[in-house]
Amino acid sequence: MGYRILTDDDVEALLTMREAIEKLEQALLSGSRAGLVAPPRFMVSLEKGDLVFTAGAEVANDNVIGFRVYETFRVPTAKHEQLVVVFDSRTGELRGLILGRRLGAVRTAALDGIAIKYMAPRSPDCLGMLGSGYQAGFHFESALCVRTFRRALVYSTTPDHRAAFAAAMRERHGLEVEAVDSAAAVVREADVLLCTTSAVRPVFDVARLRSGMHITTVGPKLAGAHELPVDAAGRSDRIVTDSIAQVDAFPRPFFLLGTPHRDRMIELCDVVAGKQPGRASEDEITLFCSVGLSATEVIVADQATRNAAVRQASLD
Amino acid sequence: MGYRILTDDDVEALLTMREAIEKLEQALLSGSRAGLVAPPRFMVSLEKGDLVFTAGAEVANDNVIGFRVYETFRVPTAKHEQLVVVFDSRTGELRGLILGRRLGAVRTAALDGIAIKYMAPRSPDCLGMLGSGYQAGFHFESALCVRTFRRALVYSTTPDHRAAFAAAMRERHGLEVEAVDSAAAVVREADVLLCTTSAVRPVFDVARLRSGMHITTVGPKLAGAHELPVDAAGRSDRIVTDSIAQVDAFPRPFFLLGTPHRDRMIELCDVVAGKQPGRASEDEITLFCSVGLSATEVIVADQATRNAAVRQASLD
Repeated sequence: MGYRILTDDDVEALLTMREAIEKLEQALLSGSRAGLVAPPRFMVSLEKGDLVFTAGAEVANDNVIGFRVYETFRVPTAKHEQLVVVFDSRTGELRGLILGRRLGAVRTAALDGIAIKYMAPRSPDCLGMLGSGYQAGFHFESALCVRTFRRALVYSTTPDHRAAFAAAMRERHGLEVEAVDSAAAVVREADVLLCTTSAVRPVFDVARLRSGMHITTVGPKLAGAHELPVDAAGRSDRIVTDSIAQVDAFPRPFFLLGTPHRDRMIELCDVVAGKQPGRASEDEITLFCSVGLSATEVIVADQATRNAAVRQASLD
Repeated sequence: MGYRILTDDDVEALLTMREAIEKLEQALLSGSRAGLVAPPRFMVSLEKGDLVFTAGAEVANDNVIGFRVYETFRVPTAKHEQLVVVFDSRTGELRGLILGRRLGAVRTAALDGIAIKYMAPRSPDCLGMLGSGYQAGFHFESALCVRTFRRALVYSTTPDHRAAFAAAMRERHGLEVEAVDSAAAVVREADVLLCTTSAVRPVFDVARLRSGMHITTVGPKLAGAHELPVDAAGRSDRIVTDSIAQVDAFPRPFFLLGTPHRDRMIELCDVVAGKQPGRASEDEITLFCSVGLSATEVIVADQATRNAAVRQASLD
């Protein structure tokens, strides 16, 4: 059999965040010229969880079609592994399989990095993190790929977790990172605020937001279950998402659906292509709603697969 | 990494047609009691082909959820491999991956075997085959699992192919198998007629059908592209399909949609469960339209994966 399944360790060794950001920036440019096929996700639902498919293609540069599939089982043993499968979009040939949590995390963080690159203030001082779980570290890294920060603050509900996160980020990135004991203490200082919580109630008071901030929401953002206050959208001068098709297609509605804010949303690919500004002035508040643009996981997986082949060839 | 991808050779060694038929007969019984989750297929379409997903679950006996994905690229090099992935429906745990053409072929033929078991005349003499491609051999075998035939006839458009098919089936199953030079010569004699062509125009004249026959159509069956004449449905006393949800969900309509025959269609699971007869008398003409019941590929793949684990354990 000619196929090898790449795992998290392989992806870590084969693909840097910087390369993922570069690949997806090209993909978004392609998307703005109709090179991306990115339908909303599809799912099969059972009592204890769903099997979710995000499928898509990029047919301008990388010529890939494929999908990611993951389970959302609400059981203690669930590993929430994701399988990404890549095919050639010209021939249908299977190119690669990747299994684990890392690839999806890198892809989501890389999209956020692109949003931060085009939307955040040019010279931020403080990176604010709400949430310190598996996904948070990837967003921390992607922010550092596109902006220089003097320091970072992190808050999450479990003191041990936020302290461990601060220590790990300090160690890994050589930045001053402090764990603080409230979301307010982060929001008060953050120039770029990355929310990666699993909270279903808003995690901060909108009155704390300040001119010039950029906010990203990666955590829950469905009606009745969202980490951001709806008013945070009201306070934002500009609201960008990676996929409006996905915003409109969640089985449980997106938290801004039916509000005037939904109609103000623009797509990240149009920002990258220069059709829309990501930020028009230094005092705007900007908001990026990360919902998952299909095809992007396939593009990143394809790059990791290519890198694996190059490495294998150099070993042979 | 703990995952091994099973391939065609593994599936051939691990799973007999008889076992596939038994598993799917249980699954259909489960389906008649709402144990199957089998939504219509989902696809991502590009200019040269589609990526098609059939996803589903069986939550009464085997506790599996998963999917099959395949490409339909119209290029000479396309291998049309299929990937089937199985998860545990209680925990979301990944159980197995199977890659190749064989598993999907076995599953489709096993469903047909069940249809033949419940619908065909009890004491047929002649098995008729229209089409001699990759899929045909599996249907030949599944028919032999559920009925005893004295002889078989095969017709397909290329003389070499039908002769090779007849020789291979004779060799493999020890049955008298003859290649003939017209579809009419097959239809005239067949008590069970299995159509597995790729024809988009009807392959026989409905006037040739005889009382007491059973017909299965596996090949094209969409509006404007179907191997059976629409009148074959008109002549049939009973029309069964593996999935009415799928019949109604093809992007290009099913060939009987909008005809009175669509409303007469019943589901194979209800026949297996005894809610509907598959055949009410020896002189009825019965028709099985094979459209692909999702979840069944996952159930068969799960069985192959279990068998692989048992074999591995006996080697260790």
